[in-house]
Amino acid sequence: MKHEFLRLIDVLGTITFAISGVSAAMQKRLDVFGILIIAFITAIGGGTIRDIMIGDLPVGWIRNINYSIVITIAAVVAIVFNSYIKNLGTTLFIFDSLGLGFFTVLGLQKGIATGLHPLICIALGTVTGCFGSVLRDISLNNIPLIFQNEIYATACIIGGAAYFLLLQSDLQKDWLEVIIIGLIFFIRVIVVRYKLAMPDLYAKVKKSDLQEFRE
Amino acid sequence: MKHEFLRLIDVLGTITFAISGVSAAMQKRLDVFGILIIAFITAIGGGTIRDIMIGDLPVGWIRNINYSIVITIAAVVAIVFNSYIKNLGTTLFIFDSLGLGFFTVLGLQKGIATGLHPLICIALGTVTGCFGSVLRDISLNNIPLIFQNEIYATACIIGGAAYFLLLQSDLQKDWLEVIIIGLIFFIRVIVVRYKLAMPDLYAKVKKSDLQEFRE
Amino acid sequence: MKHEFLRLIDVLGTITFAISGVSAAMQKRLDVFGILIIAFITAIGGGTIRDIMIGDLPVGWIRNINYSIVITIAAVVAIVFNSYIKNLGTTLFIFDSLGLGFFTVLGLQKGIATGLHPLICIALGTVTGCFGSVLRDISLNNIPLIFQNEIYATACIIGGAAYFLLLQSDLQKDWLEVIIIGLIFFIRVIVVRYKLAMPDLYAKVKKSDLQEFRE
Repeated sequence: MKHEFLRLIDVLGTITFAISGVSAAMQKRLDVFGILIIAFITAIGGGTIRDIMIGDLPVGWIRNINYSIVITIAAVVAIVFNSYIKNLGTTLFIFDSLGLGFFTVLGLQKGIATGLHPLICIALGTVTGCFGSVLRDISLNNIPLIFQNEIYATACIIGGAAYFLLLQSDLQKDWLEVIIIGLIFFIRVIVVRYKLAMPDLYAKVKKSDLQEFRE
Repeated sequence: MKHEFLRLIDVLGTITFAISGVSAAMQKRLDVFGILIIAFITAIGGGTIRDIMIGDLPVGWIRNINYSIVITIAAVVAIVFNSYIKNLGTTLFIFDSLGLGFFTVLGLQKGIATGLHPLICIALGTVTGCFGSVLRDISLNNIPLIFQNEIYATACIIGGAAYFLLLQSDLQKDWLEVIIIGLIFFIRVIVVRYKLAMPDLYAKVKKSDLQEFRE
Repeated sequence: MKHEFLRLIDVLGTITFAISGVSAAMQKRLDVFGILIIAFITAIGGGTIRDIMIGDLPVGWIRNINYSIVITIAAVVAIVFNSYIKNLGTTLFIFDSLGLGFFTVLGLQKGIATGLHPLICIALGTVTGCFGSVLRDISLNNIPLIFQNEIYATACIIGGAAYFLLLQSDLQKDWLEVIIIGLIFFIRVIVVRYKLAMPDLYAKVKKSDLQEFRE
């Protein structure tokens, strides 16, 4: 059961990451091929950077054709039904948050399997979950969203730390995965729901800027 | 004869890709060193991304010094004779299209040699042919041209599919390469000559934008 | 003694590269997490690209946790004491130039150890020294500074050529390293001190632009 749950999240996460790529690419009015490439970059970018940095080559999506098929179908459907997809905001947000949790756990486990330091594993989990969107934004000539005000990465880092804490307990591995995915999902939902944000570093600067503006 | 033909296309393709990098970099008024780097990125970027993703390391241009020499000479000549090169438009377009075909076939064959799925091989061929220009545009803070209205990638994909179809026949490998390079060349020339384009996804949106503008 | 000197430069260089990332990120008003990522990208980007291209994987900073710790502490200190750090301009410039020399030598030596052509080794040295800042600028949606008017890369290339010249002599390896680091440091300081620059390719163009402007 748990295995099928994890595989389902993998597929749903890949699909929603691809759809987020389609949306961003259509905002910049790319043509069909450009949209497809951005969908791919968003969906497989994080895992690709991780695999390259730890030397697990060829990278995952090259070895398993299923990712390409899922992403292509998701992108084509998202292009055709673009106006309908806008109404699925909440559903996509839920899938996206589940996918974030799943990909983070995947990155963590790959780091552990490679025998890396826990802090590096947490970094790899965060890269896996977040850097698809970083590549998407750089390709579209935007400053990456997660560098600015997203709680994405913070959820991954907390989830990663919790993973290593719970690893000390005698929890079964499958349950551990489900719990951490749930935790990352939960953090992200709570933050967006209650509009929490990291402390604003520039509060003072902005204020003085404003004063300068008034004078 | 055919081998020499292929080697010639490799050199001509590398040179024209490097020159396209020089042109783009000079439009952004980079200094000599910046232009040289962009020439390199454009000429070897696609093959470098391919080699990294399949794990064929060190990447090709690092193992074979000839590429660096050809690119450096091409870039220096293109900088010095920049105003003359603008008049070579048609010649460069022909070399560039031949190079696109050659690099795509190279990527296809590397994918096949690595034992990858045909669809992944086609993707690798497209990456080899097109992603030098993607890296060039991202480095110069432009949205990649091929994401917007270029037929570049479509020619690569069709060429890649034809390669696998013809692989079923008992055609000799050298001839197969020449035919696919010719096909990609032909598609690109026809499209640019008759100004064909992918269907415009945003036709409706643009129309209503216009109306809004008039009101 | 020389070993400790080299290790000190490694640490100081990493710290100043991280701080330059923090400064650039704060200018774009990123949040804490975004600043930290840019600090990392700037400090370990050059070495990461080098390691990936030559296939020395997992990349260096993943294998040695010390880099992550040094970068994180440097970034946090730089964020907290941001207004004080602005007054350290000269000190940071000295550390930064030493770091540039050290990282260039590191890249050169890795290339030699991999058995690559001297010109490729010089390119790898330059990539190691300079491409952290290239990735930083691309991530922040700027055209890379070193493509425009920095003397950074030229110092690395001259230092790399000198390294191979001195390798012919019977100089001790440790001294060779110290001398080349000193040379790169010296070139950079001289250039910035006396405001030297590469010849301006666009002098004529700018003039005619001006005339057009006046008419």
